[in-house]
Amino acid sequence: MLPRGRPRALGAAALLLLLLLIGFFLFGGDLEYVRPRGAAALDGDPPADRGGHNLSDCVPPRPLPPKCELLHVAIVCAGHNSSRDLNTLVKSVLFYRKNPLHFHLVTDAVARNILEMLFHTWMVPAVGVSFYDLEELKPQVSWIPNKHYSGLYGLMKLVLPGALPPDLARVIVLDTDVTFASDIAELWALFAHFSGVILLRLDRLRQAGWGQMWKLTATRELLTLPATSLADQDIFNAVIKEHPGLVQPLPCVWNVQLSDHTLAERCYSEASDLKVIHWNSPKKLRVKNKHVEYFRNLYLTFLEYDGNLLRRELFGCPSPPPPGTEQLQRALAQLDEEDACFEFRQQQLTVHRVHISFLPHEPLPPRPHDVTLVAQLSMDRLQMLEALCRHWPGPMSLALYLTDAEAQQFLRFVEASAVLSARQDVAYHVVYREGPLYPVNELRNVALAQALTPYVFLSDIDFLPAYSLYDYLRASIEQLKLDSERKVALVVPAFETLHYRFSFPSSKAELLALLDSGSLYTFRYHEWPQGHAPTDYARWREAQTPYRVQWAADYEPYVVVPRDCPRYDPRFVGFGWNKVAHIVELDAQEYELLVLPEAFTIHLPHAPSLDISRFRSSPAYRDCLQALKDEFHQDLSRHYGAAALKYLTALQQPPGPA
Amino acid sequence: MLPRGRPRALGAAALLLLLLLIGFFLFGGDLEYVRPRGAAALDGDPPADRGGHNLSDCVPPRPLPPKCELLHVAIVCAGHNSSRDLNTLVKSVLFYRKNPLHFHLVTDAVARNILEMLFHTWMVPAVGVSFYDLEELKPQVSWIPNKHYSGLYGLMKLVLPGALPPDLARVIVLDTDVTFASDIAELWALFAHFSGVILLRLDRLRQAGWGQMWKLTATRELLTLPATSLADQDIFNAVIKEHPGLVQPLPCVWNVQLSDHTLAERCYSEASDLKVIHWNSPKKLRVKNKHVEYFRNLYLTFLEYDGNLLRRELFGCPSPPPPGTEQLQRALAQLDEEDACFEFRQQQLTVHRVHISFLPHEPLPPRPHDVTLVAQLSMDRLQMLEALCRHWPGPMSLALYLTDAEAQQFLRFVEASAVLSARQDVAYHVVYREGPLYPVNELRNVALAQALTPYVFLSDIDFLPAYSLYDYLRASIEQLKLDSERKVALVVPAFETLHYRFSFPSSKAELLALLDSGSLYTFRYHEWPQGHAPTDYARWREAQTPYRVQWAADYEPYVVVPRDCPRYDPRFVGFGWNKVAHIVELDAQEYELLVLPEAFTIHLPHAPSLDISRFRSSPAYRDCLQALKDEFHQDLSRHYGAAALKYLTALQQPPGPA
Repeated sequence: MLPRGRPRALGAAALLLLLLLIGFFLFGGDLEYVRPRGAAALDGDPPADRGGHNLSDCVPPRPLPPKCELLHVAIVCAGHNSSRDLNTLVKSVLFYRKNPLHFHLVTDAVARNILEMLFHTWMVPAVGVSFYDLEELKPQVSWIPNKHYSGLYGLMKLVLPGALPPDLARVIVLDTDVTFASDIAELWALFAHFSGVILLRLDRLRQAGWGQMWKLTATRELLTLPATSLADQDIFNAVIKEHPGLVQPLPCVWNVQLSDHTLAERCYSEASDLKVIHWNSPKKLRVKNKHVEYFRNLYLTFLEYDGNLLRRELFGCPSPPPPGTEQLQRALAQLDEEDACFEFRQQQLTVHRVHISFLPHEPLPPRPHDVTLVAQLSMDRLQMLEALCRHWPGPMSLALYLTDAEAQQFLRFVEASAVLSARQDVAYHVVYREGPLYPVNELRNVALAQALTPYVFLSDIDFLPAYSLYDYLRASIEQLKLDSERKVALVVPAFETLHYRFSFPSSKAELLALLDSGSLYTFRYHEWPQGHAPTDYARWREAQTPYRVQWAADYEPYVVVPRDCPRYDPRFVGFGWNKVAHIVELDAQEYELLVLPEAFTIHLPHAPSLDISRFRSSPAYRDCLQALKDEFHQDLSRHYGAAALKYLTALQQPPGPA
Repeated sequence: MLPRGRPRALGAAALLLLLLLIGFFLFGGDLEYVRPRGAAALDGDPPADRGGHNLSDCVPPRPLPPKCELLHVAIVCAGHNSSRDLNTLVKSVLFYRKNPLHFHLVTDAVARNILEMLFHTWMVPAVGVSFYDLEELKPQVSWIPNKHYSGLYGLMKLVLPGALPPDLARVIVLDTDVTFASDIAELWALFAHFSGVILLRLDRLRQAGWGQMWKLTATRELLTLPATSLADQDIFNAVIKEHPGLVQPLPCVWNVQLSDHTLAERCYSEASDLKVIHWNSPKKLRVKNKHVEYFRNLYLTFLEYDGNLLRRELFGCPSPPPPGTEQLQRALAQLDEEDACFEFRQQQLTVHRVHISFLPHEPLPPRPHDVTLVAQLSMDRLQMLEALCRHWPGPMSLALYLTDAEAQQFLRFVEASAVLSARQDVAYHVVYREGPLYPVNELRNVALAQALTPYVFLSDIDFLPAYSLYDYLRASIEQLKLDSERKVALVVPAFETLHYRFSFPSSKAELLALLDSGSLYTFRYHEWPQGHAPTDYARWREAQTPYRVQWAADYEPYVVVPRDCPRYDPRFVGFGWNKVAHIVELDAQEYELLVLPEAFTIHLPHAPSLDISRFRSSPAYRDCLQALKDEFHQDLSRHYGAAALKYLTALQQPPGPA
């Protein structure tokens, strides 16, 4: 929600009022307006749709818009936290909705970046989204003295009628901190009571100049009010005061507020039918309301609700599918369910919902030799984050593969950690879980795409880099006079400890001593020596300067590369060959492999992840991995021609001695 | 769901028909019955509550029962899997309901055991539950030849009118494999069209003998039908055939079935308003229905829905709180929110929802010296289960601390594991997560209470016992001529490895060799030697026979005790002192501590759990633990008088050398 410098209760009070303020333009000053029969639902009483009809079986029809009518919703949203709130609000709206929807989002650059990606990857049928630039609208309200910069976001609602498309006649305006408990169409239907005529009147009143009306009022109010307390509420209130006939209160069930105890309870205790709950921070809430549990539960329901489940089509409302859906469905339809690798191919085609910059994140201005550590993880590696922060003082871009509920656990985990809370240069990108196989390379690509520095260190979450690595890498990039045009991959030699308790070496000399005493090994020395053999650990022991090494089959070093390096191949889902294929791609694009003499990173022991253990034992798994490798090599030949032949040849030779 | 020997589609078709069969008794053969005005909703058309009212603003009132009317639901449920289905069904009903509900559950012993605990710990306001014994009712239908034993459960619906309380006039009967998408009151309201008069007619017709009617029909049908195909459907169908006027079809939206494609789609595509979806197994479903995604998503919504969120009170419907709620609320109200240990005390008072025997489980008949391994875990230790099964071939009772969604992941994990699927003697009890602190001792108590053998081995999930331990323990119990009256705790010495990859010793000799070579240590030798010092590892090396040891401060051995041993003290939440307190309790109750010379168990390394790492760093945590310890000692003195003095004294002395 938007931080503001005044009690939330006030902010809350204005929320749905705006619906009516926009509504009021529709019929506002018009004395000819006749209250329609069905408008009983518009007064302060709860809708009378239960019992109480003893005298007649005849009641007004339940107010609902025509089937399949497109409903418009406008929301002002700025920053990381507000974007998370918006996600929860939208989930509650989508859960109950039966109509096509269009969201008009007035956002700053941060929220737009996050929400564009979120809606693009969410792919909900019958949902449209438009973005409006908050920065562009700001001058229209920034002349109003306002203590808090963020207070301007509240004032944005004043300019919505002008900012939204001129042919848009009706819109529901929502704060990000509300939760729906009913179909938003019921709210929209309150417009419908004024029938089609109102559409025209909206246009007329718009032309007559709401823009002038509120500015005049605001200017007049500023003469008597202390400047700092003036916000959107105050202006709305002043306009209403001047034009009391323009306002029609919403039935109270449409804005049940926790802070306003007496009023709220009198409303809903009779209704047993809440429509919208208006939040402030539910965690800090100390309101002595006996139904607070009910409200909290509704909020938590949608906070933790699996948003993938909302990718459902509407019944009987034909609407254009979200972009990409048709190709996707064609591709899915072409899959052979009897194919042993069906699950792999299905997983490859899965579009995961992505919430980039899930937590507030303030990257430093870009520096020429800076390096971002890029990695991905799931819930069972969260414990690594604190240690990683201690070892890597630079920027990080981390993709997390989580359910909606786990994303909330993750949020609490970060909040509870002083180490993690203190870091502003770590960006967390949530990729929501879907499908049985771990989309390891898709996750790496999400993290990689969000790195903002010229170089990236492509690491894995189980590794802790040398304490000095961040500084050393930047110094090396500078000394080697690299620029992002030069195709170089700096190799960071990898080691591992099998000991659970372990004292991390503070220098190369200490590391070598541990290696000699058998406390450390070169990475996967026992199980998969060819994975790192080309790094040439013997040479590294003695090396004083960076040295070049050649690609060989199955090589999968940890490397530092320019940010625009090739992406990981997303066909490799589950486990196996995902990094190997990336190094092949680097070599095919003629990246030089340079081993850094003072760099090292150490793998810590851990239990096998749930995701790996579920599939490792399956014999079909190895067969599918082989099929994926074959297809990868075919594509490689297609791209790089004869030059790619060496990868196939290398594959067919037995690996040499490590 | 109930396994049956015929296509599920048939079974599905009868589901909600029963509602009407019970309904039909209400007005059935009565020619005086006049269809009420509002009964339009009873025909096959979807409720006409959207648009289409051009000619009149007057439509019949939306059918809903009077506010706060108690609605009755009957469900037949047998076995473990059906109990899980029922849990999901009930969640969907509770999510939308606004009325008090009473569930009439006709169950076998397994389901009753599970569901009694589930509802008792769920503590949902305005929900009553009654149980009826399926075994008692069985003779009423077991005379009907039926190929499948389980088919009898379907036939149970025939005897419901006689089995339910005579003063119960109306009931909605549900299969366990349905999901609600709307308020069940709307379904109940279909009764209401027949108003209060019908209540009397139900009674009259009941007395007139439905019991005879269906038996006569069944007997007659048996003359011509092959015995094996006769089930509840067939009998209902035959009765209906004889009395066609008795049946009134439900609006199709009340039983949308996936298997019946054409019919279902014609129904809901116009309605855009589904009320109930009737499932068969959603995972195996291959129905080419373009809305299958919608249905699946609704099902998954409630499968993974946090049931704790349904513990919300109804608005404006005064109803007696669930048993225990009032004391609980008083206790919670007495807590001081400013108390530094507020979170601890709140966690102690939390009642966790418990789903015992979450997976099918067939314990062997009890044997006199048998031992159940008792432990608890959360999601991050699931990987231990396979190894544990290999090390312990005997019965286990394991409590799992999970969210509803994690419980489904756990289910899939077990299904995917050949090792786990093969075991019928491992009982898994799900305790649903609630609150920030890990309720370690409550979890242990749940697992302990469900152990069925005379002895229990109280272990921890990170330990793997010697391969021989299960047999050795039973032999030792027999040799020592223990019986469950004798207060003995057999100590299993504990060791640990810090190596991630580790070859488990197959004998005491091998273990001692590893100990001497530094590959193994005695458990927590470095960090907390006093925890196991009294076991006297030096003596154990040489011991050939069990030897007695004395309690000392901070002793926390892993022990085998009679099943009726003292429970763990649930005040210890989070981490620390939870086992220590239990051993103190054993000593205070004068349990002999006998170390077994050939027994051992080994702790494997693992990353710290999320639950531990969240609190370990907090300084307030230690203070609260100290406060809990003090309170524990006060209670001890109260219980055991002067004899308990030694525990306080021991605590005040510095620990001696290990």
